[in-house]
Amino acid sequence: MTDARMRALMDRLGGLAYGGDYNPEQWDPGVWREDVRLMREAGVNLVSLGVFAWASLEPEPGTYEFGWLDEVMDLLHENGIAVNLATPTAAPPAWLTHRHPEVLPVMADGERFGFGNRLHYDPSSPVYREHAANITRRLAERYSFHPALAMWHISNEYGPTAYNEAASAGFRRWLTRRYGDLETLNEAWTTRFWGQVYTDWDQVEVPSVPRTWMNPSRILDFKRFTSDALLECFVAERDIVRSFRDDVPVVTNFMRFYRNADYWRWAPEEDAAALDIYPDPADPDSHVSSAFQFDLFRSLKGGRPWLLMEQAASAVSQWRLNVVKEPGRMRLGSLQAVSRGADSVMFFQWRAGRGGHERFHSAMLPHSGPQSRTFREVAELGREVGLLSPVAGTATRAEVAVLFDWNGWWGLEELWGLPRNDFSYVDTVMRHYRPLWEHHYAVDVVSTRSDLSPYKVLVVPNAYLVDDEGVAAVTEFARGGGTVVMSFFSGVVDQCNRVRPDGYPGAFRRLIGAKIDEYWPARPGERFTVEFTDGRTATSDWWREDIHLETGTALATYADGLLAGRAAVVANDFGAGRVVYFATLVEQDAFDRVLIGELRAAGVENRFDGLPAHLECTVREDERHEYLFLLNHDAETPVAVPVEGGGTDLLTGLPASGEITVPPLGAVVVRRARQA
Amino acid sequence: MTDARMRALMDRLGGLAYGGDYNPEQWDPGVWREDVRLMREAGVNLVSLGVFAWASLEPEPGTYEFGWLDEVMDLLHENGIAVNLATPTAAPPAWLTHRHPEVLPVMADGERFGFGNRLHYDPSSPVYREHAANITRRLAERYSFHPALAMWHISNEYGPTAYNEAASAGFRRWLTRRYGDLETLNEAWTTRFWGQVYTDWDQVEVPSVPRTWMNPSRILDFKRFTSDALLECFVAERDIVRSFRDDVPVVTNFMRFYRNADYWRWAPEEDAAALDIYPDPADPDSHVSSAFQFDLFRSLKGGRPWLLMEQAASAVSQWRLNVVKEPGRMRLGSLQAVSRGADSVMFFQWRAGRGGHERFHSAMLPHSGPQSRTFREVAELGREVGLLSPVAGTATRAEVAVLFDWNGWWGLEELWGLPRNDFSYVDTVMRHYRPLWEHHYAVDVVSTRSDLSPYKVLVVPNAYLVDDEGVAAVTEFARGGGTVVMSFFSGVVDQCNRVRPDGYPGAFRRLIGAKIDEYWPARPGERFTVEFTDGRTATSDWWREDIHLETGTALATYADGLLAGRAAVVANDFGAGRVVYFATLVEQDAFDRVLIGELRAAGVENRFDGLPAHLECTVREDERHEYLFLLNHDAETPVAVPVEGGGTDLLTGLPASGEITVPPLGAVVVRRARQA
Amino acid sequence: MTDARMRALMDRLGGLAYGGDYNPEQWDPGVWREDVRLMREAGVNLVSLGVFAWASLEPEPGTYEFGWLDEVMDLLHENGIAVNLATPTAAPPAWLTHRHPEVLPVMADGERFGFGNRLHYDPSSPVYREHAANITRRLAERYSFHPALAMWHISNEYGPTAYNEAASAGFRRWLTRRYGDLETLNEAWTTRFWGQVYTDWDQVEVPSVPRTWMNPSRILDFKRFTSDALLECFVAERDIVRSFRDDVPVVTNFMRFYRNADYWRWAPEEDAAALDIYPDPADPDSHVSSAFQFDLFRSLKGGRPWLLMEQAASAVSQWRLNVVKEPGRMRLGSLQAVSRGADSVMFFQWRAGRGGHERFHSAMLPHSGPQSRTFREVAELGREVGLLSPVAGTATRAEVAVLFDWNGWWGLEELWGLPRNDFSYVDTVMRHYRPLWEHHYAVDVVSTRSDLSPYKVLVVPNAYLVDDEGVAAVTEFARGGGTVVMSFFSGVVDQCNRVRPDGYPGAFRRLIGAKIDEYWPARPGERFTVEFTDGRTATSDWWREDIHLETGTALATYADGLLAGRAAVVANDFGAGRVVYFATLVEQDAFDRVLIGELRAAGVENRFDGLPAHLECTVREDERHEYLFLLNHDAETPVAVPVEGGGTDLLTGLPASGEITVPPLGAVVVRRARQA
Repeated sequence: MTDARMRALMDRLGGLAYGGDYNPEQWDPGVWREDVRLMREAGVNLVSLGVFAWASLEPEPGTYEFGWLDEVMDLLHENGIAVNLATPTAAPPAWLTHRHPEVLPVMADGERFGFGNRLHYDPSSPVYREHAANITRRLAERYSFHPALAMWHISNEYGPTAYNEAASAGFRRWLTRRYGDLETLNEAWTTRFWGQVYTDWDQVEVPSVPRTWMNPSRILDFKRFTSDALLECFVAERDIVRSFRDDVPVVTNFMRFYRNADYWRWAPEEDAAALDIYPDPADPDSHVSSAFQFDLFRSLKGGRPWLLMEQAASAVSQWRLNVVKEPGRMRLGSLQAVSRGADSVMFFQWRAGRGGHERFHSAMLPHSGPQSRTFREVAELGREVGLLSPVAGTATRAEVAVLFDWNGWWGLEELWGLPRNDFSYVDTVMRHYRPLWEHHYAVDVVSTRSDLSPYKVLVVPNAYLVDDEGVAAVTEFARGGGTVVMSFFSGVVDQCNRVRPDGYPGAFRRLIGAKIDEYWPARPGERFTVEFTDGRTATSDWWREDIHLETGTALATYADGLLAGRAAVVANDFGAGRVVYFATLVEQDAFDRVLIGELRAAGVENRFDGLPAHLECTVREDERHEYLFLLNHDAETPVAVPVEGGGTDLLTGLPASGEITVPPLGAVVVRRARQA
Repeated sequence: MTDARMRALMDRLGGLAYGGDYNPEQWDPGVWREDVRLMREAGVNLVSLGVFAWASLEPEPGTYEFGWLDEVMDLLHENGIAVNLATPTAAPPAWLTHRHPEVLPVMADGERFGFGNRLHYDPSSPVYREHAANITRRLAERYSFHPALAMWHISNEYGPTAYNEAASAGFRRWLTRRYGDLETLNEAWTTRFWGQVYTDWDQVEVPSVPRTWMNPSRILDFKRFTSDALLECFVAERDIVRSFRDDVPVVTNFMRFYRNADYWRWAPEEDAAALDIYPDPADPDSHVSSAFQFDLFRSLKGGRPWLLMEQAASAVSQWRLNVVKEPGRMRLGSLQAVSRGADSVMFFQWRAGRGGHERFHSAMLPHSGPQSRTFREVAELGREVGLLSPVAGTATRAEVAVLFDWNGWWGLEELWGLPRNDFSYVDTVMRHYRPLWEHHYAVDVVSTRSDLSPYKVLVVPNAYLVDDEGVAAVTEFARGGGTVVMSFFSGVVDQCNRVRPDGYPGAFRRLIGAKIDEYWPARPGERFTVEFTDGRTATSDWWREDIHLETGTALATYADGLLAGRAAVVANDFGAGRVVYFATLVEQDAFDRVLIGELRAAGVENRFDGLPAHLECTVREDERHEYLFLLNHDAETPVAVPVEGGGTDLLTGLPASGEITVPPLGAVVVRRARQA
Repeated sequence: MTDARMRALMDRLGGLAYGGDYNPEQWDPGVWREDVRLMREAGVNLVSLGVFAWASLEPEPGTYEFGWLDEVMDLLHENGIAVNLATPTAAPPAWLTHRHPEVLPVMADGERFGFGNRLHYDPSSPVYREHAANITRRLAERYSFHPALAMWHISNEYGPTAYNEAASAGFRRWLTRRYGDLETLNEAWTTRFWGQVYTDWDQVEVPSVPRTWMNPSRILDFKRFTSDALLECFVAERDIVRSFRDDVPVVTNFMRFYRNADYWRWAPEEDAAALDIYPDPADPDSHVSSAFQFDLFRSLKGGRPWLLMEQAASAVSQWRLNVVKEPGRMRLGSLQAVSRGADSVMFFQWRAGRGGHERFHSAMLPHSGPQSRTFREVAELGREVGLLSPVAGTATRAEVAVLFDWNGWWGLEELWGLPRNDFSYVDTVMRHYRPLWEHHYAVDVVSTRSDLSPYKVLVVPNAYLVDDEGVAAVTEFARGGGTVVMSFFSGVVDQCNRVRPDGYPGAFRRLIGAKIDEYWPARPGERFTVEFTDGRTATSDWWREDIHLETGTALATYADGLLAGRAAVVANDFGAGRVVYFATLVEQDAFDRVLIGELRAAGVENRFDGLPAHLECTVREDERHEYLFLLNHDAETPVAVPVEGGGTDLLTGLPASGEITVPPLGAVVVRRARQA
């Protein structure tokens, strides 16, 4: 059904979606007609409408003003622009928080969040939920069958973590469902430590200040609960709109690497994964991080096309320093999303506002108007997105997968108490992803619940916390013939954040064929020499493990330090498969060499071997065609690419064969018949 | 009337005021006679009395103890020392805050400020205001006609920002006066953005936590309101003392660059601008900043003499590191104030206390007593200040003015959301002031409401927020023949902090003769080469603008980067005048060259051209005489200064003519007949 | 009596105590037997039991479960392991804080501490004290005469600072006892400054936010009160257990340099000083700091053996980076404690937990089990500790003492307002202690109330705040013939944190023979050249004083800067003694040279002169024997030590005479007959 809804949407749009957030309630109606004229000029076919419009739709409790929205919906429809209609529940109006201050979230420091920002609600608040359901129902009643309606956009960037009374009540309900009784809870949380035993459910509260030196199992469950409480809000609103009409997609917009919501649990509830992404133009490497996010979002729904729901046309305004996207960069980033499975290119927002916090956030139509560089680039991109309509609905195949897991992330970063407490899970994952990106491998991102059968290699970065099913999944993957590349401090704790018994790494000792006596984080500045069996040496730092080989063999050993002679990298044959385990942080080049070597040994397909790293090469395909995306991220050097067979460059309409030159910051999209 | 009051005070003192804060209530009466004896030895003729004495004057609600104050007032009067009597309302007593905790300000983080610090009051609190009015009235009743009374010192260093309930009520009243109705408020604040519309006045509160990502118009108005609430407190007390006696000056002591009070709004309510200044002796450049503050304080009252109300005799105690004023520095700083229009040299405080927070703050009479280096310097300075009595009441003429505006300051620094969020308005202003100081130009500081007719050149540093009248004033100045030197990111938003429509810089597009497509803040470390039309090159960094010339011409263009060939500095003939606009942060030397070149081209008078920068040269004058102040800030190098005509060195009484040598850290004050 | 209790304990143990915290309530009873078996294997003879067991002992108010504890006590006793039984009052159970939230401490930022951490109690809370007394009484009733009971361990690491209502009430009671009436309080606190006079006791509260810019006398008294409030809790529980049985020692475990409790006031109430110490293995110098702490703890009870109550077997888990103790380091640190007077070597904790905040804190029996490196080192050390049983009860003689004082510490670090505000008292003390350690001097640590008669030299680091008795003690020490080496900014304020009158340094002007006009903290990076009378020069920085010699003479003068020619180091003959005063921060080498020179001149005994600094050399002795401890802290270089006479190496049982070689990280303990 999900697929049918998305296919219907794409059919209706006739290709990829192009557009952005549209907030007509912030402008005089006189501006609306100019908006629509310029939208058409820019190739816009879909807008997200009313995201923050609650106060405009229900200015007083129970009083509704739909007239302006009727007018805008009609106007858009008349001009062939479809609507992604938002429930406005991310922005509770002033009357609601004034009458019911308990709706406002109490923050981590114990202060109550004031009205006048955004995301000012406790997701567990019954009052909030009731009012949110009501406005959602009113909108659904009125617009479910409006001809402009093409999709529902539930709330916006779900995110608040609240420490309210209502959150404590919700936490208790959640824990009751999870553990059944207090005895099980006490056992799961090891509350005998420091005498934290609960003898009555009422004693259990959300973790209030201070949040250092706390029970790690409690903190972990609080993270899970918070994600689930937000998800409940989504599901409640989704079910309301779906009760009126069942055939349009319902989504919400996620945010890049967002630690507060476990997107693996959310994705099944969505019709499509939708991403808001704001790479920092000041970061010359941001496109690599973007690539990973795009792969993650494609993977969240099992490879189905996803939606790029928000990006900036140029600079944002929320950081300390907000530089512009230089000419060509916005186009390249947009095509990159499409190349990795996006079926939409959308922006926040259509027209730059004059007031409010985000008035210096760029827009498709900036303060400088239609003559601006930005609008010209937006309109040109709109034309090109139209040319790419054939790729809508196509897919990507990958033979290597990277594990990315929220529970592990929380375990590593939510609380002190580890051997070292400066882990950055995302940075670590990116260290593992970067060589795959640079060598042009197609990569999927997986959870421990994903179907691993399509893959030859599974990369497991720093999987500190893995539950029993997860351990079994990774183990079975190797046993069945897969290659697992795993990095240090993995398999340490169970689903309750308790150290697994019988020595480190409890979960993976047999898998890696070695036992770890003790974790040896490195002193600041300490560096070690690591000698590989092929005679090469490399340096490592940050982390070591006092490792004792069992069935495994040393792929590399320390050449110095107190662990000299011990294994630094372990290889282990396991079942029909193979495991490589990095017990120290080897310098990137050496790590890459080993990882890419394992991919080659495992026979992972790579059609772009030898092309320079800055030329991003990806393939989308359907049953008949494949679409080669060649994106040159370098601003100075053109790249010549041999294209076997030959096809058509969708952006120029010209034949593409022999050697194609991709100019600096340029892009070529070759369509050709599938060769397989 | 203001002038008459100040003239009467100066006549009474027979010249400049010399003295400091005197807190006899902290000492046994036995000490008082020694105090007065040493005051006379030090040349003291005025003391600020009772600044924190509320608890000593009204130990219980409604119980008054004036005996000690009677005695001190009499003693001072007998010894020829006049009194600047303070209302003690900066220090509400323990009984008041204990009975009425709501008087204590709730701070930005939501915590209520506790008793035991200072400035512990919410200026909007009716309870505070009532009690403050009462003690003021009692003091005025008793001392208005005491012969020692020479001036009223209202409260102390007005400053608290409070987030109390009473502040919210006050904020609503203030907004009602400003906007009339909620619809206008919603429009002014663009509350449709993020759905922040107010539908009832009771929903409007002071901006509570967190204060990031908030409505910038609301924050701006909250700053204005806070300044006005404090000003109301001042005016209320001033009116009480004035209702008893109308012929003595009433002032309050301001603090250097103080962001919480818009001194342009306060100055008209004062009889004289009074400054507390604590330059850091560890900062080798602090005298340049002092010079600007002195010029500002002289300008606040339209060029009339101002009062140096507090400074340290040596070290302070409030910073992390508090170094001493090395020998001669305190004298030089004091004479610098006089040279720029001060008619007083006063200190905090007379005698160093044994206890309390500021016991290591230096004093005129330090812990080491009358034999100390400090007391000896204080006494010698007292003698010299006496010799300078002829300069009392004299004025300064300037032909160049620098715009300094609190609203613009707030706009730049009070909230994130700008293209970059590390603006320092004061640093930027100082970049513009420094070359004027180094080249010995007399400078006035102006607001957008000042009379600009005396000036040939107006310097406008980073005027991000200017209201419509301000825009008109600057525009008319140029149209009428003036030269405007303006720097980047000016004229962007209106009085409500809303981006001005129709492209950047909305306010000044015609003035600068160029349109800005987009603001391009620079990446960290990024530097650009800028080529001037005269062939010189310079580097710039931090900021660029994608500028498109209209009537303007490029005075300099970028030689590299993506904006190569575009204008970096624009010159525009506008009406009878000329505008130079810096669209990037040019290195200081190049900026100085352009600015000083414009001053010379505009014919701005400079009598000290060619003298070294570290010799500060200023002139005060009256109808018959002029007083040349020559202050050598260098500790090692004497400077020879040719003095045309000749006059008398007031400090030595010797004739000064031909070439005068100003020794290291030395000062010469030449009086001579006016030449004009 | 105290001595008798401790002697009885040591007799019972037959030597030194060896063991650690044991938390059987966190484990299934099935594990207990394995625990006891391995304890025996490791030589454990004492465990601290039940430290956090309140929730397990009293799961509901008034419901007790002693069965498990009975069983564990019996099991331990059967296996010859004595019990240091804890009152579990450091961990109030969830039911207590849920029913009585006022028990939870309000923190410095005004937030109430939540349940789920530890030390979550306001020591002034009557409710807390009542419940703590009750559980203490129940335990004492049941176990006072259990044969396993060998010692009482009251609570754990006393520490909370609370800003509750109950704390304010307690503070008022404490102040009433100290000052009697409000007038005396107002005088002591100099409340006339900033008008902070109190006119009713109810106005006096604990210092609430913000705590900058506050009354320094009030802050000082609040520190004293907090320490005393915690001490009251200790005494109350101690008296309860003692009321049941009077012949076993009662102690509590202190923490290294802990600023919140004045251990000089606590020590007389303890039967032995007990130390928890966690030197950072990443700090190559941590053993020098440990040595000082060991000397302090030996000195707290006048030289009597003390107890090393907690240390880590390897890494801890509470810091950002937690590195392991490399092989041999744990042993060396343990022997170092014994060498400086410890009669126990104990750990936190016996068995590493699977859950809870400290699950990665190392343990005697780590996650890796009995085969682990750590357990093998623990067991080997247990064997060696057994061999050292003869040293139990022996003492150390020292002729040099270092003053270490909590009041002075608080004065320097608890509040801004000093000439500079980055004092680190502990760092300063360590600067003075390091040369003594490097030259192998035996050192005692003293308070101003200690008996100073045994010493030839008294080192007084930065004694900013000294009360009148303290001033007299130091003065009399010098007058009587002792040598005082004192460093700058000493003797400044009195017991109320008020500057002493009549010029700096009020307390010690006659002692040092000089008057200080002003304190001249140095600018960042400023360095001075100091010339000694012997012609040597050195650099100094950070601090200078404008010093004027009276009876003193310059031992060194400044060779540059504005104080050139002034004394930088002063020597003064005073009575029959001598005083050396450092008025600037001389570089460490030069300081060491002067200090060691003074020790030699004073004839302080040193039996290890000339041995390398990294070989720590100490002596314990009784009437018949002396025990030379030679510990080599270097990991690479062996040291040869000539041993006159000869004796027996206790660790090997071999004769030790002539030249002994101490291997890298090695230790030798020579017993021989006393030579004196």
